[in-house]
Amino acid sequence: ASPLVLISGPCVIEDYKTTYDIALYLKTLTQDLDMPFIFKASYDKANRTSVNAFRGPGVKQGLEILDAVKKELKIMILSDVHQLSEVEQASQVLDIIQVPAFLCRQTDLIFEVAKTGKTVNIKKGQFLAPWDTANIIEKVLSVGNERVLITERGTMFGYNNLVVDFRGIKIMQDTTGCPVIFDATHSVQLPGGSGKSSGGQREFAPILARASVAAGADGVFLEVHKDPDAALCDGPNSLRLDDLGPLLSQLKELKSII
Amino acid sequence: ASPLVLISGPCVIEDYKTTYDIALYLKTLTQDLDMPFIFKASYDKANRTSVNAFRGPGVKQGLEILDAVKKELKIMILSDVHQLSEVEQASQVLDIIQVPAFLCRQTDLIFEVAKTGKTVNIKKGQFLAPWDTANIIEKVLSVGNERVLITERGTMFGYNNLVVDFRGIKIMQDTTGCPVIFDATHSVQLPGGSGKSSGGQREFAPILARASVAAGADGVFLEVHKDPDAALCDGPNSLRLDDLGPLLSQLKELKSII
Amino acid sequence: ASPLVLISGPCVIEDYKTTYDIALYLKTLTQDLDMPFIFKASYDKANRTSVNAFRGPGVKQGLEILDAVKKELKIMILSDVHQLSEVEQASQVLDIIQVPAFLCRQTDLIFEVAKTGKTVNIKKGQFLAPWDTANIIEKVLSVGNERVLITERGTMFGYNNLVVDFRGIKIMQDTTGCPVIFDATHSVQLPGGSGKSSGGQREFAPILARASVAAGADGVFLEVHKDPDAALCDGPNSLRLDDLGPLLSQLKELKSII
Amino acid sequence: ASPLVLISGPCVIEDYKTTYDIALYLKTLTQDLDMPFIFKASYDKANRTSVNAFRGPGVKQGLEILDAVKKELKIMILSDVHQLSEVEQASQVLDIIQVPAFLCRQTDLIFEVAKTGKTVNIKKGQFLAPWDTANIIEKVLSVGNERVLITERGTMFGYNNLVVDFRGIKIMQDTTGCPVIFDATHSVQLPGGSGKSSGGQREFAPILARASVAAGADGVFLEVHKDPDAALCDGPNSLRLDDLGPLLSQLKELKSII
Repeated sequence: ASPLVLISGPCVIEDYKTTYDIALYLKTLTQDLDMPFIFKASYDKANRTSVNAFRGPGVKQGLEILDAVKKELKIMILSDVHQLSEVEQASQVLDIIQVPAFLCRQTDLIFEVAKTGKTVNIKKGQFLAPWDTANIIEKVLSVGNERVLITERGTMFGYNNLVVDFRGIKIMQDTTGCPVIFDATHSVQLPGGSGKSSGGQREFAPILARASVAAGADGVFLEVHKDPDAALCDGPNSLRLDDLGPLLSQLKELKSII
Repeated sequence: ASPLVLISGPCVIEDYKTTYDIALYLKTLTQDLDMPFIFKASYDKANRTSVNAFRGPGVKQGLEILDAVKKELKIMILSDVHQLSEVEQASQVLDIIQVPAFLCRQTDLIFEVAKTGKTVNIKKGQFLAPWDTANIIEKVLSVGNERVLITERGTMFGYNNLVVDFRGIKIMQDTTGCPVIFDATHSVQLPGGSGKSSGGQREFAPILARASVAAGADGVFLEVHKDPDAALCDGPNSLRLDDLGPLLSQLKELKSII
Repeated sequence: ASPLVLISGPCVIEDYKTTYDIALYLKTLTQDLDMPFIFKASYDKANRTSVNAFRGPGVKQGLEILDAVKKELKIMILSDVHQLSEVEQASQVLDIIQVPAFLCRQTDLIFEVAKTGKTVNIKKGQFLAPWDTANIIEKVLSVGNERVLITERGTMFGYNNLVVDFRGIKIMQDTTGCPVIFDATHSVQLPGGSGKSSGGQREFAPILARASVAAGADGVFLEVHKDPDAALCDGPNSLRLDDLGPLLSQLKELKSII
Repeated sequence: ASPLVLISGPCVIEDYKTTYDIALYLKTLTQDLDMPFIFKASYDKANRTSVNAFRGPGVKQGLEILDAVKKELKIMILSDVHQLSEVEQASQVLDIIQVPAFLCRQTDLIFEVAKTGKTVNIKKGQFLAPWDTANIIEKVLSVGNERVLITERGTMFGYNNLVVDFRGIKIMQDTTGCPVIFDATHSVQLPGGSGKSSGGQREFAPILARASVAAGADGVFLEVHKDPDAALCDGPNSLRLDDLGPLLSQLKELKSII
């Protein structure tokens, strides 16, 4: 059986130092656990709930920071793109290019990302049935790129709430043949639930992460922050960096049984 | 009370002749009914379920066709944009620029569209609570554009199904002050429900259209086709052009009571 | 086309005087409108959210009050049963026996009610698809009773919320051949949403009632109270008695167009 | 940490021999695993989808069979009640009395069951939020019975489908203090999904069972049959008896890590 993969980092690049520190912490932690690790941070949060929310350093400065961290630490980097015009630049730096959940049905963006030849991480839309990811994967394959991950991040359940259907992990693995990553921190968001931003239930992220590994997930995606309550984005659902070690050990142990 | 507005046309521009014929038919029909009318057709279906689906003539040729129809018939035109790069071109031709439901949270696209000064039609995402449209409207207002419509097109209800919450029309009118249009034909889609394309339940569109007017909608949005079963896009949920007249008369009568 | 039917009354029998006064008010109002009317009140709220909630006068005293009101005003009476042992007694007084939504799958209760030969009103469970009512109707028919109504009262939508799927009215009419009543006041409940009781959104009941008639409902079910904020049950979703007249006139006018 | 509890047996009592054989198999299996075990079988399926479905031997003969099995094998027995009149009889034989999901809001039934002093297993309604179980538990406690279990069996998700919200296990444990059992086989039902009966997705039951243990469930509830495809009730979601051993070993191992 393949080892559990970790995709982790802060929601958004706040500055070089913070980004580097988190990446270094995660690299060390996962090396000790012998766990494959990909660093994740966004340079632009292009779909924030409110017009006044912090969006990040933007594509140019953001990619520079990610490139510097990558070279310094020799780690793999994942980030997300939102415009056709960003994709080429992003592919110079990133190892895995992520298509955001809201954009997972935008055919041209999928094509542009797939054509880079980089690994593509499709975030499954909150509005999509598990079996409907097969049509998206086919779009990636149609341009000759076979390196695809699917990330589950919950499904709309009434208003301002998400639910994770753990049958979906198996369904997506079986219908697409792709590894399925479980995004435990976005799955506990309460979309729009705080008025001007999305709320979150950080306390449930470890529980759902454990459930996902037991249900057969190939990897977990966890947003972290040194001090989540002070985070500029997605604080309510981010995990404290210091709490990550014990959780990862446990997830690794669970994976060994499945 | 203001009169009921109709936004109608084929899902996608198939060619000039078909587009012109439908527009002429609708213009004549709505003139007879004294009903304000805006013609709608898309030049690019950028988020089709499958990679092999027909997408339309593209932005350049599509806008040329719309421009010709507009000048010939002297009617208002609405179409949707999917990329920042399309917006300026589209604003040369369109009277109302529509932001697709899947893209209603893309802040930059909202800004770009709003800055044209044209009327903006925000399609409410299938994943959004009615009250959460207020944050989107605020993005439009923040660049000084106060001409905004919201279009309801159903909310995810389990997998491959939508439900219309008619409380939402009032909620959106009250929280944003914007007119609310009800898209009866997309609301009866079964997203992804036909495997390689979305299914639809055309037979329920008139029922929901009637319910929406009784519930206080300011306008209705109805996709039509001369022969829906032969349509290149959204046939399963499009109405037959010949069935439109009696429905519109009835909707107008309902509106007069509310 | 058959006229719109009204089923209305207080949620629970509070005492004889209150019950009589409301019934008289409704009888007079519907006579003026020439609208068929059935009086509804419950003698036992057997499934209140909390153990401490008011439940009503009970089966014996409740049926006595309903019988007195019936004889005094010469009106038809509907109430609901919850135990096999109540059914025979209830059938002595009631014209229509209602099976509560939570109990709509209890085969023995359906049989017992159906065997009385009285008209049966099946409240569609909040957990049921419209097409699944056909199996329930078949249970009624199987004992030789063909007088059945189905009442729509909303479907679970996430937690502590209901949504009305107006496609369901047509679906149930077509699959069962039964008249479909729309319960506008229970459809705006927020189940369990107030902690110790269900909340409600009274302001949306007239909107949904209008939508239901436009969508083809055969009748509406509206709980009313002289002073809903002081009601002992379902106050948050009950309508003020004084507001009923204008609403009913409008519903009647809408029905005439459909 | 307390050991994982197993509640298991056939959906319905088909006859003495079948019931005894399954109980013996399960007793032996769980003794080998040192896993606390409660045998479950229903004597009456009072809420079958269709009027023609098999319902079981009924309360008298069913309880006799359960009593004989109990005395022969010296095991604990759980079954469900549907009428007030059954409760006293059932309490003579059963160790745990279960309140069915559809009936979890029937106050009198809860009282009657709670008053027996037996352990009460409340099946959480498919229409209930996790936090709303607290009001039900309070009804049990109000008559002086503190021995209560809650069983999660999925929540309505659109039509003819259920989803399990694994946040709910923790929410119910925290708000009620009761052990929470996860019913993996009813959670994979497709209610009404086969027209005249509920469908099921047996293949997902082990996956969800594993997820539930990882998410902190105190026990699992698994319906089994020697030959599920020939079962008279709930075959589509029952597990094959022969597949149970390896699953239980794995669940026990998962529990030891949590």
